[in-house]
Formats: sequence, C-alpha cells, structure tokens
Amino acid sequence: MQIIKDKKIFEKFVKKLQKRSFSEPKIEDSVRKILNDIKKSGDKALARYTKLFDKHSLPLKIGKKEIEKKAKDISKDVFNALIFAEERIRKFHEKQLEKSWQYQEGDIILGQIIRPLERVGAYVPGGKASYPSTVLMNIIPAQVAGVKEIAVCVPTPNGELNPIVCAALSILGIKEVYRIGGAQAIAAMAYGTETIKKVDKIVGPGNIYVATAKKLVFGEVDIDMIAGPSEILIIADNSANPAFVAADMLSQAEHDEMACSILVTNSEQLVNSVKKEITRQLKKLPKASIAKESLKNFGAIIIVKSLQEACNIANTIAPEHLEVMTENPEKLLPLLKNAGAIFLGQFTPEPIGDYVAGPNHTLPTSGTARFFSPLGVYDFVKKSSLIKVGENGFNKLAPYVEVLATLEGLHAHANTVKVRKTT
Amino acid sequence: MQIIKDKKIFEKFVKKLQKRSFSEPKIEDSVRKILNDIKKSGDKALARYTKLFDKHSLPLKIGKKEIEKKAKDISKDVFNALIFAEERIRKFHEKQLEKSWQYQEGDIILGQIIRPLERVGAYVPGGKASYPSTVLMNIIPAQVAGVKEIAVCVPTPNGELNPIVCAALSILGIKEVYRIGGAQAIAAMAYGTETIKKVDKIVGPGNIYVATAKKLVFGEVDIDMIAGPSEILIIADNSANPAFVAADMLSQAEHDEMACSILVTNSEQLVNSVKKEITRQLKKLPKASIAKESLKNFGAIIIVKSLQEACNIANTIAPEHLEVMTENPEKLLPLLKNAGAIFLGQFTPEPIGDYVAGPNHTLPTSGTARFFSPLGVYDFVKKSSLIKVGENGFNKLAPYVEVLATLEGLHAHANTVKVRKTT
Repeated sequence: MQIIKDKKIFEKFVKKLQKRSFSEPKIEDSVRKILNDIKKSGDKALARYTKLFDKHSLPLKIGKKEIEKKAKDISKDVFNALIFAEERIRKFHEKQLEKSWQYQEGDIILGQIIRPLERVGAYVPGGKASYPSTVLMNIIPAQVAGVKEIAVCVPTPNGELNPIVCAALSILGIKEVYRIGGAQAIAAMAYGTETIKKVDKIVGPGNIYVATAKKLVFGEVDIDMIAGPSEILIIADNSANPAFVAADMLSQAEHDEMACSILVTNSEQLVNSVKKEITRQLKKLPKASIAKESLKNFGAIIIVKSLQEACNIANTIAPEHLEVMTENPEKLLPLLKNAGAIFLGQFTPEPIGDYVAGPNHTLPTSGTARFFSPLGVYDFVKKSSLIKVGENGFNKLAPYVEVLATLEGLHAHANTVKVRKTT
Repeated sequence: MQIIKDKKIFEKFVKKLQKRSFSEPKIEDSVRKILNDIKKSGDKALARYTKLFDKHSLPLKIGKKEIEKKAKDISKDVFNALIFAEERIRKFHEKQLEKSWQYQEGDIILGQIIRPLERVGAYVPGGKASYPSTVLMNIIPAQVAGVKEIAVCVPTPNGELNPIVCAALSILGIKEVYRIGGAQAIAAMAYGTETIKKVDKIVGPGNIYVATAKKLVFGEVDIDMIAGPSEILIIADNSANPAFVAADMLSQAEHDEMACSILVTNSEQLVNSVKKEITRQLKKLPKASIAKESLKNFGAIIIVKSLQEACNIANTIAPEHLEVMTENPEKLLPLLKNAGAIFLGQFTPEPIGDYVAGPNHTLPTSGTARFFSPLGVYDFVKKSSLIKVGENGFNKLAPYVEVLATLEGLHAHANTVKVRKTT
C-alpha cells in the first residue's frame, strides 16, 4: 500500500488508476466474431457456443417451474434477507419515478412525455460471480419504471442452475429466463434470434467478454454502463475508528486484484492504526491473497493538511464509493462533487449500500462519476418532446422560423411555414 | 420514392434504414491516429492539424472581443430571431430541472443528490453546416443545468469566423471559444492539452470524423449522442393538406442524401396529391437535387388500413421527428411510443421545433428513440446516492448484510458489519 503525501506522486497514482479499465484489442476481435456469428446464425450459433463454453445442450429457455423448484433449495434466512432487500430497494427506486408534463401558451402546447422502455435484457453472471444482489439491483428499477418485458440471461456451467439466482428471479416474478452467457448472450439480446426477441436495452455486469460485447452493441441497443474494477475512497479524521476504516478498505480489496481502496486523512495517527488493523484483519480473511494484491497495486493512504483538501482529492478521483468518517460528515457534503454513492458516518459501511440500504449498487467506476450516475429508474425510460401549435401560435412563431431557416440555407424548411401562411 | 403496401417490403425498407448509420473502419483508423497524436503532443499536434485542415496558424483561443465584434455583422432581423429562439428554448428547458431529494426512516437517511457537470465542451461545426440554432440547442440546456465552465470549439476554415455563430455565442455569454475543429477538437476536449482543459462531456454535431471521434472517446468523457441522418415520419389521414405534407417531407429530404422522409396514410387519395405536390414544390427548391436523391433512396409512402396500424409502423421505425396530421391528432398520442419529438396538427411543421418552439432539436435518430431521449438538462447533471445510517438503523440492517455477503462469499464485506457490532 502506497503512502502519498506529495502532489506529483498523487498525480502519478491517479494516472495508474485510470489505466485500469482499458480493454484489450485481442478480446475485442474474438468478441466481434461471436457477435457476427449470432447475428448471422441465431439460435444455431447460440447452441454451439453454449456447448463450447458451458458444456451443455439443454433448451435455451428455462421454464418458470424449473426456476421455482430450484429456488426452494435456499435457506429461510437467505430467503428472508432477499425479501428484506427487495422491499427496501423497491421503496428507494419508487422515489425516482418521473412524470410526463406539459404546459400551454395560448394555443401552443409543449411537453415532455416519459414512457418506460418496452423490452429490457438483464445479464446475470453465472458460476463464481453469481450475485443475487445484482439480480435485485438491475431488475427492480426496470420494474419500477414500468418495463413490461424483462428477459434474463444467465449462464449455467454444466447445465447447473444456481438456486440463489433462481430465488431472486422468483421473488421478482421474472418469467422469461434463458440459460446462456458470455458475449453470445449479449449478442442474442442485441440482435434477436429465433427464440430470443431483440431488446431495447441490456443491463447487468459480467466478465471482460460480456463487457466488451456490451460496448460493441451499444447504439444497436442501449446499455447500462461498462463497470470497471470496484473502488472505495474513505475520508477520515482523528475521530474515525481504525478497525472500521480497515474493514471497509478490505471489503473493496477482496473483490479483485484490480480493485482500489484509498484512505484520505489529515491524521498521521490514524494512518498507523489503520495499517496495523489491515494487517490484523487480513489474517482472518478467506480472500486475503486477492485483497493483499489489490492493496499492493491500487491501495493508498493519502495524507492531507485539511478535510477540504481531502474533498478535492475525492473529486479528482471521483470514486465509485465514497465514505466519510469524520466528526461532522454532513459538513463535507456540499464539497463532495463526484462520487457514485456517498456513505456518511461511522455506521454506514459500504456493504450496507451493496445489499439493503435501498439505493442502487450499480455505480459509475474509474472516475466516470464525473459524468455518469448510479443505475436508476431514469435508465429504463425514454422521453419524447411534444409540440402542438395552433393557428395563432403559428402566426407568432412562423416569421422567426423563416428568418432562421433562410439564414441556414434551408429553404425547404422555410417553405414549410410559407405554404401554411398562404392558406 | 417507394410506395409500400406489403409487410415484407416494409420490413426490407426498415432494414435499409437501419443500415444508414454504420461507421466506416477506414475512417476509424485515421481518427484513431489523430486522437493519439493530440493525446501525445497536445497543442503542437493541434496546431499542425489545424494548419493542415483549416489552413491557418492563428492562436487557438478566440478572444471575447473578437467574437463580439464579428457578431455585429449580422442583421437586426437575425439578431431578433436568435433572441426570440433563445428565450423560448430556455423557458422549456427550465421545466426539466430536477432537484435533489432525501427521506428519513428513523436514523437512516437516503437520498439522491443532483449536481451539474463541472465542465462541458460544445462542438460547433464550421463552414457549410454552421447552424446558429445548434449553438442555442446544445448550450442552453447546459447553462440551465448550472454547468459553470462551457468551452466551445468551432473550426474556422482559412481563419474566417462565422458572424452568425459569433452572434449566438455572444447572446449566450460564452467566453471560452477555440478555433479548432474535426477529430482534433474532440481529442483536445477529451484529453486536454496545454491550452484546453479536459472536459467532462462533449456535445454537438459534426461530420463523420467528429462523430467517429466522439464515439471513440466515449467513456473517457461522456458524449451526447451519435446523430445519424435526419428522419421524419408523417401520419396523415384524408383531412391533411397535401401541400403541408409535401413541404414537411421535403424539409427533411433537403438535409442530405441519407435523410429519410416517410408518409404513412390510410388515404389513397392523399398519396396521389402528395406526390403531385412534391413534384411541384421540388421545382422551386435550391437543394432540389439533394432532396430528390434522398427521396429516391429513403423516401416512402406507406399505405395502411387504419391509423392504429400507422402508429404501429411509427413505433417500429422510431423516427427522430413524428408529425401527426389527422383529424384528431391527440387521439393517437397514447399509441405513439417511440419518437424523438412528436408534432401534432396541421400547424406544427417540424421546422418550428428546429428553431423556436422550445424543446431541443437534438434528437435520437436511426431508431434509437426506442431507448434514447432528446438532449436535455438531464444530460448535463450527474447523480450521487446518499446513505447515512445511525446506530439504530445499523442494528436493523446489519444481520441481513451479513447473511447476503456471506452467501456471496464476500467475507470482508460481512466483516464490515461484524467489526461494528462488537463495539
């Protein structure tokens, strides 16, 4: 873990962080091939890739009964936790619902119509990284937005369904599920096949092949975002509990070797106690080797003179997760401009936001919180402008349209008001 | 112009439309070279490309006085029209402003913080396609959102400033303007150079090089959208005035040879009269040859049995502009799901929306209205989730976090609540 006190070293560190999320041209080539195959040969190519990567030839679609049966394999505790999370996530996202509006000026009506997307595809990773929380976080906002058709793709290595994913899908009432994964699943949702109808938007995380495929089909369909490795930045002062700080840093670091954990503090004393705590807690972690590697590569403690300076650093890095463990965390809020989610106070560890707080855990990474937002209901709607002009309004607006259209050399544009004036 | 009555032919036509917006790999390669050059050599490369493409070696930055002086070259009529448009556009976009919100449950606070982007770059095409309306439409929403730094890039072929663009910039009070264009301008805004500070988002239309550059820097910065060729779809019944329909179709067709104009009607009588009107009006158009070519390639009249069927066709094509000239246009509104902007009634020709109605004229093209929205104030803000949990709330949420984190094999996540419980 790097200790940073110097501005130049900080700038070098930021550059290193930003380089984490670049894609590999080699992977792009092989993903492009898969996309083209699915586009050309549909279900046939889909079956071929599924056999190759997931080692099974089961029907693409998974029946609702099969999902519900498998869902019963989970414990009561897990079921209750999923229900608890589902309710809280839904409640938060319901506050994001926007309404269409219009206003009138004489016989001119102007407005903004907001409608849900018609059909959305959600990708759920299979195997090791099969997270039920992700199922909830990706699908609930679409449901709240009013999306009627939600198709889910989940790879089933060796044909094995994951009971926890099934439980999450069953709780959400999802009926259309396909056992496919990887770039081929993204292609199927983007282009459509004989079995799978083309969607309007694809959401959900995945490995580098899935992420690359999403990037390549963007424009053909919409996508949520390309999530990079996870990040946490913690602003803490002398009042922070070093065990809490250490635990929260480690919770990011265990994600993968590219994850990034940063402490920014004005307290040299905290630096030492956090370092000790990290060493102590690491010993008990099953994923200690991943966490160690992550901290070695992308872990840092940045020592600053003031909390104001800490906020500036947070704004420069624009972290996915930003924790504030200071004596008066609310005081810093107006200074914090770029972050996916902000966690205030000693009792708000980031994992509370991952699972049950309510806000979405799909957040902008790699500094993109400068311009991107958390996944939300607004990602599952589209807007249309509404314009209705009556004869009076037309007479008021037409002369200006004529001047500007003529100025821009668009005579047929000007003509649309001229022909109407002569009637 | 194609007359379509058959479903299969319609499907073929839709495929043809969708193919219009594909990018060329050759252009991508040369744009990638320009991007890399600017990234590596900054201002030096910028000056070299500007000399090569725009034939001048003037300073990159254009002084405010120079802009204001040049702005005086326009007529009073044009100035008034720009002011009129500016006010109406601003008024509409002010209705799009969203507010941050939060709610409390015991000692748990949850919320959504909405903040303007800090720095935005607007690209304004120079030369032939230099449209003052585009300056207004791209910059006003950013100003309404509260973006403090707005940098504008406009190419000046042979060093010549366009007075109308200067007038629009001056009316908006823009102070930071650079005389650069093409892919090199996009690169400068995305990566930053010695003179030009990196932005968070790039908006504005441009030629294929500009569009390709925007696509390639997406992720490094945000972009508005990749606008394809313009489209209009008009739903009309027997009550429609054929001269109006013809004029509105021609106003799209004059944009370029790839533009697309479609009439969907249940009236065979209207088909004939519109065809005659098009022939008649074409004779008087300065851009007749472009319009003719556009109508030949991508013009169509689709004959349907009912207006309900017409709406289904509109939803399939998801046009940038959708006009409804029927006896009772409001009646169809609930059936129209996919369109950038909807124009209702005989007196709402699409160019009214291009210039002065108020809503934005930067709209999703090529069927992307299925999932994209008009450019708006919402494009110039970012959201952060806010989570603050007190000790009571923590005790309520913690057990569920532990269950779910353990389930997902994330023991360091579970540990963040465990360490807090033991205190």
